Amino acid sequence: MDEEENTPKVASVTSEKLLEYIKRKDRKAIQTVFDIVPNIDIAEASDDFEPADLLFIFRSIDSEISADFFDELSSDTKEKLISAMTDKQLVEIINEQYADDVADTINELPANLASRVLRAASKDMRKDINQLLQYEEGTAGALMTTEYLDYIDTALVKDVIQDIRKKGKDAETVYTIFVRNKYRQFVGTVGLDDLIFAEPDQALSDIMDQDVVSCTTSTDQEEVANLFRRYDLNAMAVLNKDSRLVGVITVDDAVDVMAEEANEDIAHLTNMSRADKPYLELSAWENARNCFPWLIALLILGTFTTMVLDRIEKQHVFTMLPMLIAFVPTLMDTGGNAGAQTTGLMIRGLAVDAFGPKDVLKVLWKEVKAALIIAGIVAAFAFLWVLLEQYMGIVSVSGFENMNIWNGQCWSLDFFGHTLKSSALIAITMGIAILTSKAIGTLLPLGAAAIKKDPALLSQPMLTTIMDVTVLCIYLLMAMAFFPGI
Amino acid sequence: MDEEENTPKVASVTSEKLLEYIKRKDRKAIQTVFDIVPNIDIAEASDDFEPADLLFIFRSIDSEISADFFDELSSDTKEKLISAMTDKQLVEIINEQYADDVADTINELPANLASRVLRAASKDMRKDINQLLQYEEGTAGALMTTEYLDYIDTALVKDVIQDIRKKGKDAETVYTIFVRNKYRQFVGTVGLDDLIFAEPDQALSDIMDQDVVSCTTSTDQEEVANLFRRYDLNAMAVLNKDSRLVGVITVDDAVDVMAEEANEDIAHLTNMSRADKPYLELSAWENARNCFPWLIALLILGTFTTMVLDRIEKQHVFTMLPMLIAFVPTLMDTGGNAGAQTTGLMIRGLAVDAFGPKDVLKVLWKEVKAALIIAGIVAAFAFLWVLLEQYMGIVSVSGFENMNIWNGQCWSLDFFGHTLKSSALIAITMGIAILTSKAIGTLLPLGAAAIKKDPALLSQPMLTTIMDVTVLCIYLLMAMAFFPGI
Repeated sequence: MDEEENTPKVASVTSEKLLEYIKRKDRKAIQTVFDIVPNIDIAEASDDFEPADLLFIFRSIDSEISADFFDELSSDTKEKLISAMTDKQLVEIINEQYADDVADTINELPANLASRVLRAASKDMRKDINQLLQYEEGTAGALMTTEYLDYIDTALVKDVIQDIRKKGKDAETVYTIFVRNKYRQFVGTVGLDDLIFAEPDQALSDIMDQDVVSCTTSTDQEEVANLFRRYDLNAMAVLNKDSRLVGVITVDDAVDVMAEEANEDIAHLTNMSRADKPYLELSAWENARNCFPWLIALLILGTFTTMVLDRIEKQHVFTMLPMLIAFVPTLMDTGGNAGAQTTGLMIRGLAVDAFGPKDVLKVLWKEVKAALIIAGIVAAFAFLWVLLEQYMGIVSVSGFENMNIWNGQCWSLDFFGHTLKSSALIAITMGIAILTSKAIGTLLPLGAAAIKKDPALLSQPMLTTIMDVTVLCIYLLMAMAFFPGI
Repeated sequence: MDEEENTPKVASVTSEKLLEYIKRKDRKAIQTVFDIVPNIDIAEASDDFEPADLLFIFRSIDSEISADFFDELSSDTKEKLISAMTDKQLVEIINEQYADDVADTINELPANLASRVLRAASKDMRKDINQLLQYEEGTAGALMTTEYLDYIDTALVKDVIQDIRKKGKDAETVYTIFVRNKYRQFVGTVGLDDLIFAEPDQALSDIMDQDVVSCTTSTDQEEVANLFRRYDLNAMAVLNKDSRLVGVITVDDAVDVMAEEANEDIAHLTNMSRADKPYLELSAWENARNCFPWLIALLILGTFTTMVLDRIEKQHVFTMLPMLIAFVPTLMDTGGNAGAQTTGLMIRGLAVDAFGPKDVLKVLWKEVKAALIIAGIVAAFAFLWVLLEQYMGIVSVSGFENMNIWNGQCWSLDFFGHTLKSSALIAITMGIAILTSKAIGTLLPLGAAAIKKDPALLSQPMLTTIMDVTVLCIYLLMAMAFFPGI
């Protein structure tokens, strides 16, 4: 299948073309671009433009489109642009936007520009913005919009439709209509489709869905995203303590949260801080700052490994059989990898609500059963593989270093016994390491989740260190048991 | 803030309660449950029921609801249920469902049941199902639905609204209406809200959005999900080679793909195969099978590390300074961790289309700048830390093992020179390891993406092995340079 066929179809525009239109003051051409190219693509193409050029674009297009276009610009460009705008221009742009988008913009602006934006907002919008700014980042309150449609449950379908025609344009979604009772409590939703299919004289209470999910302003955004996925929602009601509707979250915001949370999980799994900007906008220092504290923390944790290995390599059994030291990294890596698999499973399972901390025994039992199978198979393979490595001369067999295996010099019972014992030692250590690692890899994230910590944040680095030290100790004990005479 | 406040609100029902209603044949109570509890929650509560009990539930509720309820059951339960249903019951359930859901069910059923389901489907639906079954899993074609609303661009608003009232109930989404020209080519969309706000005598071409994104049946599902996120879509058109509309993807399906792709990325980052079932439904063997092949592959790759370490530890410099061997795991871990950070960034960046293989130079340059900062800071810290480890007696200083550092026995220029040199050796090796690891961690995933392979699949295990061997070689060279006399 050729390349072109797989590619999604969407009209596009280049920065050069846009600049050309601006230079020759061709408003018509700019309007046409906005008709056929999505706003976000135009925003990306023009993000490096001078404020004056951007302002010409704004003057060429409808205020409704320009509000959305403004919202798609990067925060640096927004900042430059707000500084360059007159108060009148700012008032126009800001008041065409949704309050939650303005609140997000304000969060990213320096204080003087933020207060300029707030002053430009209408009284109603300023109230909404100030309310939204109160909620902690990462909660449903910070995510919600205050522009939605709600009606009392006794309202008639025909009146609601008429009202939507009038006010709908200002709502962030009209596809879901929220219904309250006479105590102003949220009681259900009506899809716009159900409204259209209904008889004009029916009341909303006759046609509304009651089996709906809602959350509160303090619900964690990850949970919000999970609810959208589980219940296939288009929009969800956000309630205050008195079950009154205070806002609405739309599916496009939930989708952004999902991507953000997946990024965060992967960042933590790979021992990084989460970047709060798109990758290409990160400066070298911001990029470095997300990485090096973790490497230093791991280095400090690694001190335990160094300390234990320094002691162990002086044990008689390891000085006599230096080959055994050569397997230390493989044993540690296998332990770490086996544990990481389990941690990854736990972190994703917890993230998508496949199970919770309450399921700890069920999950642990599942992992133990799987770990027994895995440890058995990998240890059996390791036994044969290490045997092969010795016979092939990939590692030197202690005590037989200067003999040539293939001309029969080594073909003694002594040699065979020795290689079999070494292989068994490594295989058994590996099996125990896998079992231990899977158990710790299950318990660390579940434990973190139980005490309401991000399960990904500490599990992975702690696992590596614990496993390194554990593997070394098991290895030493096993080696002394296998080669007691040495 | 107390627990209850954060918890989302949704009515629920227990298995016991449901069974009680079934036992006393209380259809009314079951209907009430379906009114207030989301279908997916009821499906989970009743997933272990006997087929006879489930069939009683089906007989108690509307056929429209029962189709959705059936779809939410697990594949094992669906299988049991289909075996227990009469042909008449099956025909009812199947034909109320959407063709894409039935196609998904068929994919999971054994052949005899699958053909029973196909026979139960109406002629029209069978055609749709057979068409959907052709598309490769993971493409837009396999994801799309064939139940959507499309009209010619010359259709009038009033006629369309009337038609939607008649046919809308059968479409998977009525919120987006798809518009075609007289050549049956897709030309734009109309939101249901715009239709309602429009004048009755306007044509669709007057009110439709033209700046819309579409994909083809062979577009990768990850790209589909990215388009939904980027363009805040509710539904997207899927076209064939002639730009004709053949299906529609709705946002709830795109949301499921996002979760699936994030799971896949994390699985690959932690060296696992992706599970195709929810975690709690995996058997021990299925769970093990996703893990052990990777551990064995890594074990085989680890042979290189063993081989190199076996050679290196016999080098004079390491036998004379055994302390240096104790730092091998820390150096390898730091190299591996630094590389994993970059791989994680690349995999996520590629997954969410933040950049592509074409940006390789830009991205590499960004990572090199960050790596220089990171390597500098971590190496400087490592120098001080290793010095401290030696002075604290955490590791033994070769040649000074039996002396007590704190009573002054060791306070010679010789001792200081030796510890400084060891620390510098380890710090510089670490710095070089970080730089190398970040470079490889950038190039491996970008390279994999450039040749259209999953960037997560091979990057992580290869990185670990390459880094282990590279670090060992750098360490040996540095050690020989630092301690030439030994």
